[in-house]
Parts: sequence; structure tokens; C-alpha cells
Amino acid sequence: MGAIMNRQLKLARRPEGRVSLDDFTLEESPVPPAGEGAVVARTLFLSVDPTNRVWMKDVPQYMPPVAIGEVMRSGGLAEVIESRLDGFAPGDLVFGMTGWQEYAHLRPGGPLGLAKLPQVPGLAPEKFLGVCGPNGVTAYAGMIEVADVGEGDTAVVTAAAGSVGSAAGQIAKLKGARVVGIAGGPDKARRLVDDYGFDAGVDYRADGFRDRLKAATPDGVDVLFENVGGAVMEAAIARMNPKGRIALSGMISIYNGIGGTSYDWAPIMAKRLKVQGFNLIDCGEIWPRAARELAGWVLEGRIKAEETIVEGLTSAPEALNMLFDGANRGKMLVRVA
Amino acid sequence: MGAIMNRQLKLARRPEGRVSLDDFTLEESPVPPAGEGAVVARTLFLSVDPTNRVWMKDVPQYMPPVAIGEVMRSGGLAEVIESRLDGFAPGDLVFGMTGWQEYAHLRPGGPLGLAKLPQVPGLAPEKFLGVCGPNGVTAYAGMIEVADVGEGDTAVVTAAAGSVGSAAGQIAKLKGARVVGIAGGPDKARRLVDDYGFDAGVDYRADGFRDRLKAATPDGVDVLFENVGGAVMEAAIARMNPKGRIALSGMISIYNGIGGTSYDWAPIMAKRLKVQGFNLIDCGEIWPRAARELAGWVLEGRIKAEETIVEGLTSAPEALNMLFDGANRGKMLVRVA
Repeated sequence: MGAIMNRQLKLARRPEGRVSLDDFTLEESPVPPAGEGAVVARTLFLSVDPTNRVWMKDVPQYMPPVAIGEVMRSGGLAEVIESRLDGFAPGDLVFGMTGWQEYAHLRPGGPLGLAKLPQVPGLAPEKFLGVCGPNGVTAYAGMIEVADVGEGDTAVVTAAAGSVGSAAGQIAKLKGARVVGIAGGPDKARRLVDDYGFDAGVDYRADGFRDRLKAATPDGVDVLFENVGGAVMEAAIARMNPKGRIALSGMISIYNGIGGTSYDWAPIMAKRLKVQGFNLIDCGEIWPRAARELAGWVLEGRIKAEETIVEGLTSAPEALNMLFDGANRGKMLVRVA
Repeated sequence: MGAIMNRQLKLARRPEGRVSLDDFTLEESPVPPAGEGAVVARTLFLSVDPTNRVWMKDVPQYMPPVAIGEVMRSGGLAEVIESRLDGFAPGDLVFGMTGWQEYAHLRPGGPLGLAKLPQVPGLAPEKFLGVCGPNGVTAYAGMIEVADVGEGDTAVVTAAAGSVGSAAGQIAKLKGARVVGIAGGPDKARRLVDDYGFDAGVDYRADGFRDRLKAATPDGVDVLFENVGGAVMEAAIARMNPKGRIALSGMISIYNGIGGTSYDWAPIMAKRLKVQGFNLIDCGEIWPRAARELAGWVLEGRIKAEETIVEGLTSAPEALNMLFDGANRGKMLVRVA
């Protein structure tokens, strides 16, 4: 293996606001052979997620922040090229914490572990990084496990045009709910209805957002799948019915340090809401079931998903900025190999 | 019935801060006869609860505020003196929304409805306004139904020396949890351990509160039964373990309009907490089961409860102030008849 060179992006300093390639050191070094119980895998695609930005910050969070000098942490899709791990062989497609590098040493255990992906004829492998992977499973966990969405519910999804949001809305629709998506800009709001089959799409950037959200939710809101935080979340909470459920998937508006994270708790009490934070790292148990069900829905055409792919490892920082700018359509990916 | 005179306290203006008898009009008028499907009942005890204070405020809440000129709303224990309602007879003990008045016309339906109370030999009837009634059922709902407390959990209760809090802590103890109560002042903190069998009591008014709370919860906090809000709640949330549950029963510190109701949502996401508001008005279904179980525990001596009783209808406003001052021990009651 010594002949194969790896390229890695290591965190050089903690970015302020937008992320730049200058915040990282690009290092080249030979790939060591696989250790006992591990595989060496070639990174095919990196998954670009809001949480990547949080991992760069030295703040309390659900995993330790990435240390200065450490390879930037990231989920990724990879192909095994050497294995000293039972059940894994060269050529296998795996999902794991590849990090921002061309070759990764992966072993079972740890957050998200190492998963061998099934061969699903007709399904593009990168779907396993999106709608049949972390994003779809997140949507599934929030809508089904946390919010228990069902017939007769009105469900609102924020950041609805994103990869998690669009899946969450389509899952709620499959389960019989009336689904209203909130997104930035008229194009995205229209696509929620035209492309993803939502009942309504509301542009939070346009004037009269609150009034239009109200008009789109005449019976109030029973389920809120929350990806955003801030004024958008507050507007949705104002529409909630008693005993509503908020699946708190993320609060993207605050990851960059813009605005605070304090919001009113009085409605939780007054409306007897359930607010539940959840995260992919708790989804190990439901993952196989959710991924199988999602793959079936995708192949049946009942759930649609897009990907935005940028090319090359060194595009990863810019891909993360694109995510926060809303410049992506669907799942944001970096093609590495 | 025309010969019997009623005395009623009607809301004359919306109090600012502390409540005064001057905020009410005391009116005397004859008690009309019972209408079809209703009873006339003589109020024995009024239940004094934080929610009474909220009902006086013209803010969004789970029930409409009491209107100016309306009899102040209150739960109470009463004795039927005339009945035109099947299944109810003079002499029956009932729980209902008596309001701040000596005689009430009560009928089934509405929040909390009208409940005929069982005769439980050896149990003082006013227990049905406290530990075997609204307060105990609230504690039961929060600890068991919302937080699902159990073996191995560390449970923290705020306002722990109060009627809801002391019951909540004792229920958690019965279910096998390590229980830490937070209360104001060294006497209350000590009583939590000595009188109610908590594992620890922490005085939030004393110096080093956060450090002492930390020392009392070496394994973190899995369940928080929250009655207070404010800095006390924030300190408890800082100790919470991943996947902790917060049963949000009330936020007494904000009912008087002191401080805001905005708190950080970031820990909900970072620790994947469940925060659930709940209220007695949703407990109709569990009430009979909970009350029966609570009465059993009280008679067996496994749950202890105190009552602070003030005398006379016109003491009701001051009783409410005493509640917010923490001057009561256990359930705050007004004896009317």
C-alpha cells in the first residue's frame, strides 16, 4: 500500500463565519496498510452536512470538536481496497466516517460505525449518502419515530427544499399528513409543490411570511420538523396546535454563530408541546429498517431526491458554504475519487 | 334555595405583580336553584395553584383568561347540597371548578369536569385537592407518563418542597430513581431529605448553587421535573445527560412577569433531550388510575404530603401570594366553609 499517496485536509484553525480552504492544511502522505480489524477504503463521495460546521467549533456539542491538526471529520461513501476485517472485502461499498481525505482507515464502532451497503439494482450508490442514508434516515427518524406523523396531521418542514427537509415532507405525505414546506426564495417554494408533492410551499424571504404561513396552515400545525431555528421556527411554533410535536433536527441558522439559540419556552408549556432533539448518532437501531424502506420508496418513485455534486477534495470547504448559502439542490456531496 | 346567600370574588382589574384583595369585588347574592343537569355545591376548600395567577393575565394560555367581572376561576372541593344531575346526591363530595365563591353551580364537561370523589376511610378529604388530586396527579403524569422515570435514573425536581414537587420526588423514588430536589432555603432543602426521603436537597439561594447541584448529581441528570424556570432550570439542564427527559410542569418564576421565558434550545439539540409541556387538563384519562394509586401510597405511608390552610374566602388573594413567596408548606388551600 505504501505506493498509494493520500491527500488529507487537516483543520489548521477554527473558522469564523464562512469556511475557507485556508482554514485547512492539505497534506500528502503514503497510505499505511490496514490494521487488524480495519479496512482501507477509497473515498468516493463526502457527505456535506450542517453538523460539519459545528464540529469545527470549540463549543459543547454531541461529539468532541475536531482538534486543530486533525483530519476534518465527515461521513462518506467509500470502496474497500484492503480489508483485515471479517465480512468486508475489496470492492465492497461502505458508509463510514471517512473524513476529508482520499483514503481512510475505517473500523466498526464509534458514531455511525462502519456499514456495508447493500447492492440495490437500479439505485445510484450516492443515494446511500442522501435519501437512503444519513439524510433520509434523519427524516425518517424525525417524522416517524419522534413526531409519529399520521393521517389528519398538518406537518410543517423548515429548510424543506434541502435533502433532509424534502425527504421529511415526502415521508409525512406518504403517512397521510397535509404537508407545508418553508424554504428560501420563490423557486424553492414552488419546487416543494411541483417536484416533491407538498401541499404548499412558503417562501420565508418574501413579505408577509407569517400571514402566508398562517394561510397555508388553516387547521394549525401538529408536527414541526425543524431544521432552521430563528424567526422561521418561531413563526411555525406560533401556528402550533395543543399537543403538537417538534422534531428538532437542527438549527442551521445558528451554526455559523449568527444570532442566539434562545427561544421562548412559554409555548411549550402553554400548548403542552413535545420538543425533542434527535440525531443520527442515535439512529443505529432503526437505520437498516429505515434505509430499506426508503430505498423501496425511491425505486417506486414515491420519494424523489436530488444531489448537488461538487468535484474534488479541496472543494469541500466551499461545498459547506454553499450549503449554508442555500446554493445546493438536495443532498450536497463532494466527489473525491 | 333563595334564602342562601353566596359570596363571590370577581376579578375587578388585572393585578400587576402581587395580587391584592383590592383587585377583586366581593359580591353577595342569593344562590339560584340548580339547573337541569347541574348541582349546587358548597365550597369546602379552594385549591391555590400557580396557574390561578396566569388566568388573571390577558396573555395567550391554555385556557382563556378570566374576564373582568367574572368570578375568579379555581379548582375546589365541594359538598353537593342540591342535585339535578344523575348520579349526584346531596352530601356527595365533588371536585370541580368551584371558583372563588361560597356556592358554585357545577356540571360535567369543561376542563377537569366534575368528579365525584370516592370515600376512602382514613383519608382526609382535602387530600383530594392535593396529593390525591391535582397536585399528585400532575406529579404522576410528569414523572411516569412524560418522563418514564425508572431504575438507574437520576431525577431532579425543582420547587421540590412544594405540593407537586414533593409528590414528584417521592414517586420517582418509588420507581427506583436517585432523587435530588431543589428548593429555596436551608430548611426546605433539609426537609426534602428528612421528611420526604429524597437522596439530596439543594438550596438554590445559597452560594455555589451550581457546584452543589453538580456534587449532588455525580452521574448527571436523566429526568428533570421542572416547576420553576429561570436560572434554576438552566443549572439543572446543564447537568442533563444525553437523551434526558424534561417534564415541563410549570415555570413559576415567570408567572408574575419577572424575567423572560426565553431559554437556550441548543442543549435540546446537542443532548437530544425531550422537553414536554403537560398540564392537568390533559390528564382526564389517567386521573382515576393515578388518584387510586396515590391514595394507596398515602395510606401506606409511602408518600407524605402536607397542607397549608388559610381561613376564609377573602384570604384567597393572599394565599396566592404566599404560594409565590414560598411561604406555604405543601399544598396551599383556602378553607371556605
